[in-house]
Amino acid sequence: MDFNTVYKKRLAYINKGLDTLLMSRESHPAVLRAMEYSLLAEGKRLRPVLFLSAYELAYLYDNKQKKAVPESELDFILPMACAIEMIHNYSLIHDDLPAMDNDDYRRGKLTNHKVFGEAAAILAGDGLLNLAYEVMLENILDYPQSLSHYIKAMAVIAYSAGISGMIGGQSADMENQSEGNEEEVLNYIHTHKTEALITASLKAGVLAYREEPKILDAVTGYGKALGLAFQITDDILDLTGNFYQLGKATGQDEKMGKQTYPAEYGLEKSKILARKYIDKSVSYLEPFGVKADFLKSLSLSILDRKR
Amino acid sequence: MDFNTVYKKRLAYINKGLDTLLMSRESHPAVLRAMEYSLLAEGKRLRPVLFLSAYELAYLYDNKQKKAVPESELDFILPMACAIEMIHNYSLIHDDLPAMDNDDYRRGKLTNHKVFGEAAAILAGDGLLNLAYEVMLENILDYPQSLSHYIKAMAVIAYSAGISGMIGGQSADMENQSEGNEEEVLNYIHTHKTEALITASLKAGVLAYREEPKILDAVTGYGKALGLAFQITDDILDLTGNFYQLGKATGQDEKMGKQTYPAEYGLEKSKILARKYIDKSVSYLEPFGVKADFLKSLSLSILDRKR
Repeated sequence: MDFNTVYKKRLAYINKGLDTLLMSRESHPAVLRAMEYSLLAEGKRLRPVLFLSAYELAYLYDNKQKKAVPESELDFILPMACAIEMIHNYSLIHDDLPAMDNDDYRRGKLTNHKVFGEAAAILAGDGLLNLAYEVMLENILDYPQSLSHYIKAMAVIAYSAGISGMIGGQSADMENQSEGNEEEVLNYIHTHKTEALITASLKAGVLAYREEPKILDAVTGYGKALGLAFQITDDILDLTGNFYQLGKATGQDEKMGKQTYPAEYGLEKSKILARKYIDKSVSYLEPFGVKADFLKSLSLSILDRKR
Repeated sequence: MDFNTVYKKRLAYINKGLDTLLMSRESHPAVLRAMEYSLLAEGKRLRPVLFLSAYELAYLYDNKQKKAVPESELDFILPMACAIEMIHNYSLIHDDLPAMDNDDYRRGKLTNHKVFGEAAAILAGDGLLNLAYEVMLENILDYPQSLSHYIKAMAVIAYSAGISGMIGGQSADMENQSEGNEEEVLNYIHTHKTEALITASLKAGVLAYREEPKILDAVTGYGKALGLAFQITDDILDLTGNFYQLGKATGQDEKMGKQTYPAEYGLEKSKILARKYIDKSVSYLEPFGVKADFLKSLSLSILDRKR
């Protein structure tokens, strides 16, 4: 199967998982409605796709075979894939709040607080973050592989989502809007705000299968380069894209005085940098041959992203 | 040792744990400062005290002895006790936000967003919620008892903190301010917003030691009654207390049009109800004799609370 077919299949699998996990909850309708609005909206599901693909790489490497992971086995780690998307999604809802980036549109729809109000949006974010841990803990005792693998994967996700990772990056991003900008600050923000959870998704995928240093190191290198390339293309799109293409307001970075790659290096140099990081990410996966084909194609597809 | 001495000892133990767990983090200084401000402020630490005391009850019951749990053993569950306080603390920071209860003071200090701004307060809350799971996952593989006990305890905490528990209750509380009030709504809010995490702290304490149905049922009954009594005294204090005593603005419930026990039943009837629930809570612990003395005294102390 070609890359796009596999991606669509994984996307559908994740979307079904998210729908099932969220809609089976007993809760107060107001917060559930707000969570549903954001979590079940159309999205790339990049992080859970990376997680599942890294699990598959570890599986193929270990089993010396070319067949994909059977869905019956994937079903056990689907909640963890969905948990990663919930964490990503909560961060978008909170980042869009008036006190943060104050965005009105996201993925072509009004942002959560524009529809449900700020209180509901804060609670929807809190609810998604907490739900991520709930769903990861729910079926953990039935896990067919070693429980310690699963726990190590969870711990990596938790660390990267927290104040030493994503939240630390967002905190720096908030201060960055008023303080002096330096290359060091830009680097801290990007590695923490975006790259940390991307790399953690890949590492967790490997760990959930087995702690295999060779693959862990490879996906870590891949993730760090991919995360940076992703952030640079994000900055470029904010500058060159338009609302209909991106589904959100563009030119926001400049308006907010945010430090970005195009602002620091110029547009052309930024494009070259993105290409450089993509090539670098792919190089980490060379030792795995065709087993890593999907992840290689995924990285290359970042350069063509239109949203 | 008498009740107050033991309580003070536990409080100091928990405060030291919180300080160590938070201050050892690598993070962005802005979010860390805001978290420190709220988490390390003076507090009753009711939930972690309940957690440790429930663990002790399970320990004493199992070991047929009167000696307290050695601190070397408690040290393994201290991160979970602290995690519960982090969850409680994040919920206070977010509840105080302008979009929620819009409170300026808490525990005699300015609320988090009044000092650090809304963005930092939102991130500090997110950071504390996520940190709760980070610290619970960190040393889990060294846990001397069965790993499955620890995980079951974590799952109970996660569920009660989420949209089926505390967040669901806060969501109902937000809607309650604008919609019609009924006894049913009041009951939903109180059981979810306050009582869920209190009962979960007790259940998790038992589960972290061993899944023992007799004690689990007892602490669940105790927790539900205690949680309601706690909420009723909270409502009463909001009506009858003053700023210097409580460290926060009083009369807020009436101002916000919130549904409370005194509003529904009157002040005198509410006091009688609180006493009734306290007596009820203690009755669940009678079968455990002196082993449950601390938890019984703790419940009775709720009636005398001044803050």
